[in-house]
Amino acid sequence: MTQAATSVHEIQENLPGPRVLLADGAPITLESGAELGPVAVAYQTWGTLNAERSNAILICHALTGDQFAVGIHPITGKEGWWERMVGPGKPIDTDRFYVICPNCLGGCMGTTGPAAINPETGELYGTSFPLITIRDMVNVQAMLMDQLGIEKIMSVVGGSMGGMQVLEWAARHGDRVVSAVPIAGAARHSAQNIAFHEVGRQAIMADPDWCDGFYYKEGKRPEAGLSVARMAAHITYLSEPALWRKFGRALQDRYTKSYGFDADFQVESYLRHQGASFVQRFDANAYLYITRAMDYFDLESEFGGDLANAWRNLSARFLLVSFTSDWLFPTSESKEVVRSLNRAGRNVSFVEVESDKGHDAFLLEEPDLFATTRGFLDSVARDLGV
Amino acid sequence: MTQAATSVHEIQENLPGPRVLLADGAPITLESGAELGPVAVAYQTWGTLNAERSNAILICHALTGDQFAVGIHPITGKEGWWERMVGPGKPIDTDRFYVICPNCLGGCMGTTGPAAINPETGELYGTSFPLITIRDMVNVQAMLMDQLGIEKIMSVVGGSMGGMQVLEWAARHGDRVVSAVPIAGAARHSAQNIAFHEVGRQAIMADPDWCDGFYYKEGKRPEAGLSVARMAAHITYLSEPALWRKFGRALQDRYTKSYGFDADFQVESYLRHQGASFVQRFDANAYLYITRAMDYFDLESEFGGDLANAWRNLSARFLLVSFTSDWLFPTSESKEVVRSLNRAGRNVSFVEVESDKGHDAFLLEEPDLFATTRGFLDSVARDLGV
Repeated sequence: MTQAATSVHEIQENLPGPRVLLADGAPITLESGAELGPVAVAYQTWGTLNAERSNAILICHALTGDQFAVGIHPITGKEGWWERMVGPGKPIDTDRFYVICPNCLGGCMGTTGPAAINPETGELYGTSFPLITIRDMVNVQAMLMDQLGIEKIMSVVGGSMGGMQVLEWAARHGDRVVSAVPIAGAARHSAQNIAFHEVGRQAIMADPDWCDGFYYKEGKRPEAGLSVARMAAHITYLSEPALWRKFGRALQDRYTKSYGFDADFQVESYLRHQGASFVQRFDANAYLYITRAMDYFDLESEFGGDLANAWRNLSARFLLVSFTSDWLFPTSESKEVVRSLNRAGRNVSFVEVESDKGHDAFLLEEPDLFATTRGFLDSVARDLGV
Repeated sequence: MTQAATSVHEIQENLPGPRVLLADGAPITLESGAELGPVAVAYQTWGTLNAERSNAILICHALTGDQFAVGIHPITGKEGWWERMVGPGKPIDTDRFYVICPNCLGGCMGTTGPAAINPETGELYGTSFPLITIRDMVNVQAMLMDQLGIEKIMSVVGGSMGGMQVLEWAARHGDRVVSAVPIAGAARHSAQNIAFHEVGRQAIMADPDWCDGFYYKEGKRPEAGLSVARMAAHITYLSEPALWRKFGRALQDRYTKSYGFDADFQVESYLRHQGASFVQRFDANAYLYITRAMDYFDLESEFGGDLANAWRNLSARFLLVSFTSDWLFPTSESKEVVRSLNRAGRNVSFVEVESDKGHDAFLLEEPDLFATTRGFLDSVARDLGV
């Protein structure tokens, strides 16, 4: 089953795992002022909530992630994107903690997004879906936590866009956050990152099969455009040293250059494969909406130009992690957050992990990340008596 | 007059400036072994060749540059791309030197490329044009120099892909090169750069108006694809600090976010403008062929894995320049060349210019670049008695 083979909507309605309707299906108000409803949230959980309801860890996924952090992915058949981090005996230990990972608002894996039915028209939203923000995503997660009966969250953890959500949680729902772990994140999206996102969006919107966002009813999918968007983004997830180490200038299945436009170099076939496999599992409109939400994110400006103002009224402990070779969410962005937390007198740990794997490092084998996260969560759990 | 409004071929046939047929129109043999002919070269010159024919400077342009380094560009109506560097009293002083800038092989400004007529079919080449390499480009330049009666070249100068050509000149035509100035160049194209080029090519080839490269006869142009390719590439020409300084997160003509997919941020409108104006002056097939030529460039592997072997039999003096914030052709690439020149016992100067402007710095106001180039060329001219 791939999203290409079946309608995006059909897939989203038939994914395994729990899915709840927020606010009994009543519309919710978005940051833009628009109303959206009904809103459903699809999520996965692992472990057991203790009697005190004090051992919940919320995982916020990245731009193209989803709720299937652990276990076989229902579309790709591959293992979850955070198997290394989450599970029995892992740093986020499902033998001790109750772990929840929801699909984000605007996503394409069961939570309401552009491929959901617009109740006003009875048709799929497409680009009639309202713009959403990181704040909206987090508000929806908070409503989910309410419905699950979880008032305080032992730790909110996430990488990349997930890290943005962690910061939003702490800034706007600080009374519910016992600890926060933003990994390879940022308190605002940089100009360069907005620029790369815009290239991806333009690639999608330039594809005639996008049909102004109403491709669902035309039975089309802007696969070429989405694939180009993914390829461009994928370069930004890796470091130049990682690309060089993995591929160098090695030729693909050939001893000599083809003198043509086939994928002569391994790095080309790798990118093409990334593009082609991505379109099997992701919806182009969701890509547009979620990238836009990231672009809009700017906690500093929302808190009067001083990020420290975001952290004045909370008691959460923080652990920030960045990676030396990450040029998409570089260490400098994490340090800005660390400095602001220090200005606000908060309890904050910061580790810059030595890695040549680029932004993707947060998804990969990074013992320093694992040991740091494990140590931090152990300590938070001990304080709570979990 | 724009390339979009008139046929690409028609424009190329009617550009101002000299244009010569190489080898009396006989085909030339390319590095791939393919034959190509007739080959025409369009070029511009400034200054006067002295009686000794010893004051010629050859300028090699970058990927999307052309022969109009100085003066009003016949398509865009804007000033030349190297006005700051070339002209009377400028570092490349046209009062003293005879300066030649040819359009590169495979280009779209008068030199034979994919929009030329394929004599075998009587139609425009399109993707029946053979793949070309940096070596082919330089061979064509060498034939042009022959026809112009210039045996020794006082200096071969170029930035980016132009810098690659300068290195190729020194490596393969060392006896003709008195001095060489590769600026923001590299002796091989990196994996990351190949990856970015591949994204651009995929964007073009995904555009249905590309028509497998035969869009000319369909009266179409893959403008959407070429525009996306340009946008992605343009990000790599700038540095993150330059983007932040120029645009930050500033909104475009709006006080608040539009909550839509319009260009909310200035960096978005800037990129869209870059894409839209580029397609007015550049041919998509030329973009495919020239990027491919750059990807193939790897002097080290051509010279037995030791770049020093490329410089064993020459007497040319070298000046290499790189820019601190250039992440496309970073200083490390120039240093590799400098080290190899030193291993070969060559006379080499190297300057890393402090700049936050990224790769584009070689086209911009960089006093250190100008002073260094001026000093170097003065010294070379003095040695020659020019």
